[in-house]
Amino acid sequence: MTDVERLIQLLARLPGLGPRSARRAALHLLKKRETLMGPLTQALEAVSRTVRTCSVCGNIDTLDPCGICSDGKRDPAVICVLEEVGDLWALERTGSFKGRYHVLGGHLSALDGIGPEDLNIAMLVERAQQDTVKEVILATNLTIDGQTTAHYIAERLRAAGVSVTRLAHGVPVGGELDYLDDGTLTAALRARRAVES
Amino acid sequence: MTDVERLIQLLARLPGLGPRSARRAALHLLKKRETLMGPLTQALEAVSRTVRTCSVCGNIDTLDPCGICSDGKRDPAVICVLEEVGDLWALERTGSFKGRYHVLGGHLSALDGIGPEDLNIAMLVERAQQDTVKEVILATNLTIDGQTTAHYIAERLRAAGVSVTRLAHGVPVGGELDYLDDGTLTAALRARRAVES
Repeated sequence: MTDVERLIQLLARLPGLGPRSARRAALHLLKKRETLMGPLTQALEAVSRTVRTCSVCGNIDTLDPCGICSDGKRDPAVICVLEEVGDLWALERTGSFKGRYHVLGGHLSALDGIGPEDLNIAMLVERAQQDTVKEVILATNLTIDGQTTAHYIAERLRAAGVSVTRLAHGVPVGGELDYLDDGTLTAALRARRAVES
Repeated sequence: MTDVERLIQLLARLPGLGPRSARRAALHLLKKRETLMGPLTQALEAVSRTVRTCSVCGNIDTLDPCGICSDGKRDPAVICVLEEVGDLWALERTGSFKGRYHVLGGHLSALDGIGPEDLNIAMLVERAQQDTVKEVILATNLTIDGQTTAHYIAERLRAAGVSVTRLAHGVPVGGELDYLDDGTLTAALRARRAVES
């Protein structure tokens, strides 16, 4: 296999790129050697050199514990549990959560053979037992696997004496009822709230 | 900007990846440090170290002249002119062309300010003037810019005394007439051929 073929094969393993788009990406890199291929190589090196996984929460950062875990202004009483670092970034972008996080690194999946020991759960149980922690918000995805994972964690946290909550389900902001799936609509109806006047 | 943000920004410049999928790709790389991020960094380094542009035909290869230009078994009498190296790969995959290539590196575009001097055309004219060359096949894309480029090159090659041809236009193999655009259908009808019995 040539170097270019090897590059294409590796690019094709990125989510969102198939064999065809990996070929196009490789050619684009070869066309933009100075302005893209060089800087990208350096960025990858920099990231593998500097970025590590936070030993407390599973976030990625150049620091360990990460910037969020070591930020004294963030409420240590609330831990929001997420599947992936991408979910953490999504919540951080909203700017509406000021507690700490815990990244599981995936979800339980019988099909893929992913059990509790493969996820960052033991550390979460340990953290939840600390006196400072009052609430754990389970914000795993609303997929079957995500919800199974949330149920499992809720069980594990029962003994820790913390309040366990989950995100509200309902109509997304800007969502049109006509386009919503039945599950979301049913959940939104069941969780209806009094209109404040 | 952090190292991870910089990596995401660079990944987003690859064709086929937007800001959102670049984020997912970066997270995937961080999750697969040993098995993907490391090998990808090495592959990029290897490619920038070893791969160069062929000074004869514009192909990319570890050799200069490239493997095709220096392959004595390939017919030096026929040169197939293409816009990009990806087009060359596509033709090579068919295994049905045994001549040489010439990669222009793009197409003429008034809109993007790309003139003849920005493309690998002067070298093509020079090659076409060699006595060994009998035919130049213009296989630029069937877009307006691609066809403008082909017309321009045909003009430039007039004095070289070579036969200038283009790929046949028509119904793609496996194509259903009902789904074809009018231009293709018109071209296919005009270029109709007698059925051999």
